[in-house]
Amino acid sequence: MNQKLSNPLLEGQLDFIVECDKMKSVLRRTMLADYSRRENDAEHSWHLALTAMVLQPYMPEPVDMAHVLSMTTVHDLVEIYAGDTFAFDVEGNRDKADREERAANRLFTMLPQAQGEYFYMLWKEFDECITPEARFANACDRIQPFINNVETKGHTWRLGNVTRSQVMRRTGLVLEVLPVLEEYVFNAIENAVAHGWIIED
Amino acid sequence: MNQKLSNPLLEGQLDFIVECDKMKSVLRRTMLADYSRRENDAEHSWHLALTAMVLQPYMPEPVDMAHVLSMTTVHDLVEIYAGDTFAFDVEGNRDKADREERAANRLFTMLPQAQGEYFYMLWKEFDECITPEARFANACDRIQPFINNVETKGHTWRLGNVTRSQVMRRTGLVLEVLPVLEEYVFNAIENAVAHGWIIED
Repeated sequence: MNQKLSNPLLEGQLDFIVECDKMKSVLRRTMLADYSRRENDAEHSWHLALTAMVLQPYMPEPVDMAHVLSMTTVHDLVEIYAGDTFAFDVEGNRDKADREERAANRLFTMLPQAQGEYFYMLWKEFDECITPEARFANACDRIQPFINNVETKGHTWRLGNVTRSQVMRRTGLVLEVLPVLEEYVFNAIENAVAHGWIIED
Repeated sequence: MNQKLSNPLLEGQLDFIVECDKMKSVLRRTMLADYSRRENDAEHSWHLALTAMVLQPYMPEPVDMAHVLSMTTVHDLVEIYAGDTFAFDVEGNRDKADREERAANRLFTMLPQAQGEYFYMLWKEFDECITPEARFANACDRIQPFINNVETKGHTWRLGNVTRSQVMRRTGLVLEVLPVLEEYVFNAIENAVAHGWIIED
């Protein structure tokens, strides 16, 4: 932003809103469902929020949706500086935590202190995946790209030469948190293995 | 989705999640802040949610953020079928309500009845802009593209040959709901008029 304001806290917040526009240019490996192009982090975060709203009635335990939707909105912000790390990239996942911690400190300090700490806390809570809200948000964060993968002939599975046991590990949390999805997930994996989009191991 | 499930309600919900992926291909007139390309509805909806989270502390009255963020997530879904209507397009805004009502009926009936009615209700509440949550969400829905306009030398103002009084009318709600933004909005408009991005009238 190139305007000085008499309220420097608000100025930082508007700068933050502008800075976060960069999420629209952080590309993920996942394709759009129509296979036209790669999805970006902003689109993914929105689709994730929608997925959470649609699947919330299947949660066996109650979740605070203000908390869930706040987490889905901020969970990938650190990727503006740290970049998207492909879920099936072993190497890239080694220093992910460090890169993201530095990114969080750089980004969230643009906000007034209490708000910055709140955003940091939401991001951390999502990452730690312990509270019911974080577990639900993470389950949705795994099923959304899974769905887009199914729609695009297993695009990222093929890209990563992914095996059945890798996909099973990654969907484990989904089935723990949202057992209603079992039939869909199992059938989709069987079908992907049958087509060679997921490697049998 | 091309999988039959034993639970037809869940099948409809997964179909809905896939169908809503089309939001990523509905283009708006607003450009990204770096001026590289037009923004789409999915990105906008996410950026709107983030804007609401950042500005919420300035709301003079309390708002239920679960409700606000649910509204921001679904408020533009009807544009999958009805298309985006440019805010400053008088002609296109004439039959907007009809087109969007038909789109809502087509889209939300993919969901189980109670959930479909809930999504419809959220969309309608946003549109009617009466409750505190809807007024706040609408104010954010106007300031988000305003901010991106400021960053891109008034792109959509120039595109629509927009006058100062039109912009003032459109930002009226923002200043009513979030008076803290007055200095930023007024300075930005003055600057845009001085540069000829907004027409003096």
